Amino acid sequence: MENVRFGIIGVGNIGTVHTRYLLAGKVPEARLTAVCDNNPAKHEAIRQLVGEQIPVYSDAESMLKSGLIDAVIVATPHYAHPELSMLAMRHGIHTLCEKPAGVYTAQVREMNEFARHSNVVFGMMFNQRPNPLYQKVKDLIDSGELGEIRRSNWIITNWYRSQSYYNSGGWRATWKGEGGGVLLNQDPHQLDLWQWLVGMPVRVRAFCQFGKHRQIEVENEVTAYAEYANGATGVFITTTAEAPGTNRLEIAGDRGKVVVEEGKLRFWRLRESETEFNARWQNGFGEPECWEVTIPVAAECSEHYVITANFAAAVLHGTPLIAPGTDGINGLTLSNAMHLSTWLDDWVDLPIDEARYLSLLQERIATSVEKTSENRTLDASGSW
Amino acid sequence: MENVRFGIIGVGNIGTVHTRYLLAGKVPEARLTAVCDNNPAKHEAIRQLVGEQIPVYSDAESMLKSGLIDAVIVATPHYAHPELSMLAMRHGIHTLCEKPAGVYTAQVREMNEFARHSNVVFGMMFNQRPNPLYQKVKDLIDSGELGEIRRSNWIITNWYRSQSYYNSGGWRATWKGEGGGVLLNQDPHQLDLWQWLVGMPVRVRAFCQFGKHRQIEVENEVTAYAEYANGATGVFITTTAEAPGTNRLEIAGDRGKVVVEEGKLRFWRLRESETEFNARWQNGFGEPECWEVTIPVAAECSEHYVITANFAAAVLHGTPLIAPGTDGINGLTLSNAMHLSTWLDDWVDLPIDEARYLSLLQERIATSVEKTSENRTLDASGSW
Repeated sequence: MENVRFGIIGVGNIGTVHTRYLLAGKVPEARLTAVCDNNPAKHEAIRQLVGEQIPVYSDAESMLKSGLIDAVIVATPHYAHPELSMLAMRHGIHTLCEKPAGVYTAQVREMNEFARHSNVVFGMMFNQRPNPLYQKVKDLIDSGELGEIRRSNWIITNWYRSQSYYNSGGWRATWKGEGGGVLLNQDPHQLDLWQWLVGMPVRVRAFCQFGKHRQIEVENEVTAYAEYANGATGVFITTTAEAPGTNRLEIAGDRGKVVVEEGKLRFWRLRESETEFNARWQNGFGEPECWEVTIPVAAECSEHYVITANFAAAVLHGTPLIAPGTDGINGLTLSNAMHLSTWLDDWVDLPIDEARYLSLLQERIATSVEKTSENRTLDASGSW
Repeated sequence: MENVRFGIIGVGNIGTVHTRYLLAGKVPEARLTAVCDNNPAKHEAIRQLVGEQIPVYSDAESMLKSGLIDAVIVATPHYAHPELSMLAMRHGIHTLCEKPAGVYTAQVREMNEFARHSNVVFGMMFNQRPNPLYQKVKDLIDSGELGEIRRSNWIITNWYRSQSYYNSGGWRATWKGEGGGVLLNQDPHQLDLWQWLVGMPVRVRAFCQFGKHRQIEVENEVTAYAEYANGATGVFITTTAEAPGTNRLEIAGDRGKVVVEEGKLRFWRLRESETEFNARWQNGFGEPECWEVTIPVAAECSEHYVITANFAAAVLHGTPLIAPGTDGINGLTLSNAMHLSTWLDDWVDLPIDEARYLSLLQERIATSVEKTSENRTLDASGSW
């Protein structure tokens, strides 16, 4: 094939974004050949968006079987991601899944097992991974420039969401509709980047606040503390109810410190490692010589089409994926662990007790109340 | 009296600092008229420091009774602070106590009660309070410019201390000698400022790491999470084993955000409060208009003599104290709560169970091992 024929399942806020850049030809090796949304009331608007030439399906399987598409972007509400991704793979369709990979790790583990035995390309829409800022942090860590990691801290509080945002969809910010709040909807990027950069912790103690300053049933503020196998510690702080928010990632290593904030990366490099300095220093006060180093970072870019282009190249040429689909379980594990720690008011060791998590989630789903709402599609441009 | 005659109890690292600026006349309304150190081996060096005219005592009470001093700075190891402060007050001597106020709140509560019934001026050496950066943060909070506080975060990891620092005194970083590590020795300033700015929490969950990257028995890395009566949350992160460290305080309120870092204060002010915006906004995505505002802050200064000058003015003219002595219990309560939460591996409600804290501390004191060491006086210039 010369280019990859894409379908999209779910033309809501984010599905509309994918539709637009594919129609605009932002991914030369891809084209949009079908879309699907299970809400017929939206079909007229979708028709306006995609024009007369592209079929609009109500049923995902019909589109997957149509022969019109080679690949699909799954952009439905979170709960359906694993099921629809597996359905696509079953039909031999390359699958690019929106974040989060799912709502609870048990279903995502099943999806990952399924993917390992299928012959399609499976990717996750982690469009912050190709962002040159985080690529460079990854580079500093993987190359040893930062030294062994000792501490990480992410304050990600610039996911501001007003009550009217939550009211825009009855399913939004409900246990039944989303299975969580800021951890499931806004933070999957940061949770993925966090584990991609510093690895997975061995245990987590988290403090979720539910419906803080908002009339919603799920968490919209979280503080989490994590401990890693090498003794490193980490903190993750997030909220949707604060303005102006902060997005500041700090990682301290044996050889220095890196901070990403306000779209800039700053790197402080020790002339000798802290361990070496501490071993030789005999003068009481005093600390390792430290240089703030200016290092080149490409212009910031975290557009979705970068992931879609990489995914198309993986299909066509076997290019390695920036964000393999099976990686999606890691950030979700952190998210589930943070819920579980709060619900149990205790430590959670990783890997988490998936059955217990699901059982406690189901208790909440059972009493979950769909908000009365307008169910409108919002303009999500620039919101991720 | 025209000026205040000061004595100093304990001429170690910090006592030497006080001695020097008093001898140098940095506090016009104060002069040094006696010093005391209970280690006779140090007297020759102290004599070199203070000259022939100023008596050097071995016994605190003898100096307090000598008639040579009106006020005293208590600069001994922490455990002795309350006892010596009370001894001074008993002799009618105005008392300026070094931080921390003590090691456990039970002894500090006793000292505060004693001070309330004495007729002397009682101050704490919290020399970061007059720092114009924190004065301005306090101003922004007290005047309502920041709005109701929602979240605070202090990363204070620039208290780098090498193993050789810890080895410089056998009592250092032992349960018996200091009763704790970074929380007792380095952080009292930040713990005091934190509570001075955002108030005291209702409960704390903390994670202390003991002897991390250092051969010491006490904590030298701490992550603490705090919850406040109004629903606000806070995080405090500290370590002595990281270079280059960070000193970043962020406070988010209903009307904006303030950040103090690298000697600069930045203030973002919302045009309308988050609460008001959220109540009126109907468009889904979108957030309150925010202005970054440049506000005047005087040049940074956190020298000890500023507190000593204020204290002398309180003695001579009744000038209000910048740091009343009875305030010392607040930061210490946070410190004790962080230890206790770690030891119990559980939440600690405030006020803490003082008897339980003391009993668990005593268990540690009982097995505490004094380090073999040089017991030397370090040059502490610029270390606070």
